[in-house]
Amino acid sequence: MEQYAMPIANLIEQLSKLPGIGRKTAQRLAFFILEMDDLEAEKLSQSILNAKEKIRLCSICCDLTDVDPCNMCQDTRRDKSIICVVEGPKDVIAMEKSREYKGDYHVLHGVISPMDNVGPNDIRVKELLARLSDGQVKEVILATNPTVEGEATALYLSKLIKPLGIKVTRIAHGIPVGGDLEYFDEVTLSKAIENRREL
Amino acid sequence: MEQYAMPIANLIEQLSKLPGIGRKTAQRLAFFILEMDDLEAEKLSQSILNAKEKIRLCSICCDLTDVDPCNMCQDTRRDKSIICVVEGPKDVIAMEKSREYKGDYHVLHGVISPMDNVGPNDIRVKELLARLSDGQVKEVILATNPTVEGEATALYLSKLIKPLGIKVTRIAHGIPVGGDLEYFDEVTLSKAIENRREL
Repeated sequence: MEQYAMPIANLIEQLSKLPGIGRKTAQRLAFFILEMDDLEAEKLSQSILNAKEKIRLCSICCDLTDVDPCNMCQDTRRDKSIICVVEGPKDVIAMEKSREYKGDYHVLHGVISPMDNVGPNDIRVKELLARLSDGQVKEVILATNPTVEGEATALYLSKLIKPLGIKVTRIAHGIPVGGDLEYFDEVTLSKAIENRREL
Repeated sequence: MEQYAMPIANLIEQLSKLPGIGRKTAQRLAFFILEMDDLEAEKLSQSILNAKEKIRLCSICCDLTDVDPCNMCQDTRRDKSIICVVEGPKDVIAMEKSREYKGDYHVLHGVISPMDNVGPNDIRVKELLARLSDGQVKEVILATNPTVEGEATALYLSKLIKPLGIKVTRIAHGIPVGGDLEYFDEVTLSKAIENRREL
């Protein structure tokens, strides 16, 4: 039985490792790439390498960035006395879209989840606490997702941060429980920030 | 409003040019790639370049290949007196999976479609006719899809090839094996009745 030529089979295999890309979709993408302009394919290939090479974590907020500290941490117009703690980089972009929040961020890169063997040391908690030591920060907004793990992580963080004399708030449950921050519209997100409550 | 760092934004943009990949999916893929092993990301990037560089059309059957002539055209165990004409490279693989056919193929790379401005000169008809000139081929099986364009292309090809004294056949259309009568459209059913054969 004849198979695809090696370079095609290999391309299909690599593409099908991506999340949500099954074999049929990988095949379709591979043939699309083969029919693409050479330059366009090169740009796609290069953009993968480029992102992998250039992107690292900001040494302050742990967001993904190509400059360190990241643009937001460097931006003096932002309110440095508030830190909004989110699970991932996508959440930062989602929050920014609301245009409601003007403080800084902290990206945890995950949530505490004993079921998945993720403890406080596996996410960027240590880096968050380091930022709170100089007394500049007056409020920490916990904006983890309203899932079981997100709530547990928020509770864990509030117990760590409150004793430092810093106000700890949680975004309001304007977001349905079980939802994911990145999928909600700006208005819902603005409401959620506006209605944040002290823990 | 803060956006993604340039290398991420660029990766998302390149990914979202792929068919069926919207912005949200491109974002999800980009973050997956950023969290990938460096080596794996390199393999993905390289597989794109590699496929573009190595894959060309076989000078005989016009299938995609990394060696010319392709493995199938070089394979002397295949019956060189039959050519199965298909629309695209994916159809070759589909036919091969049936393990029923042992002849050669010819890949048209499309179908005649006046609506889309695709004429006989835009698909690999000339190359097919060239293969029929030496008298070695005894039968051409037209295996274009049973769509309006596929049927029209089959009709067009049969009118060109029949005068050369070569047997021209069309793959049978009917109810797929395992299919249920009530779920198929009238056209398929009338084809199935029209092409009934005595048991």
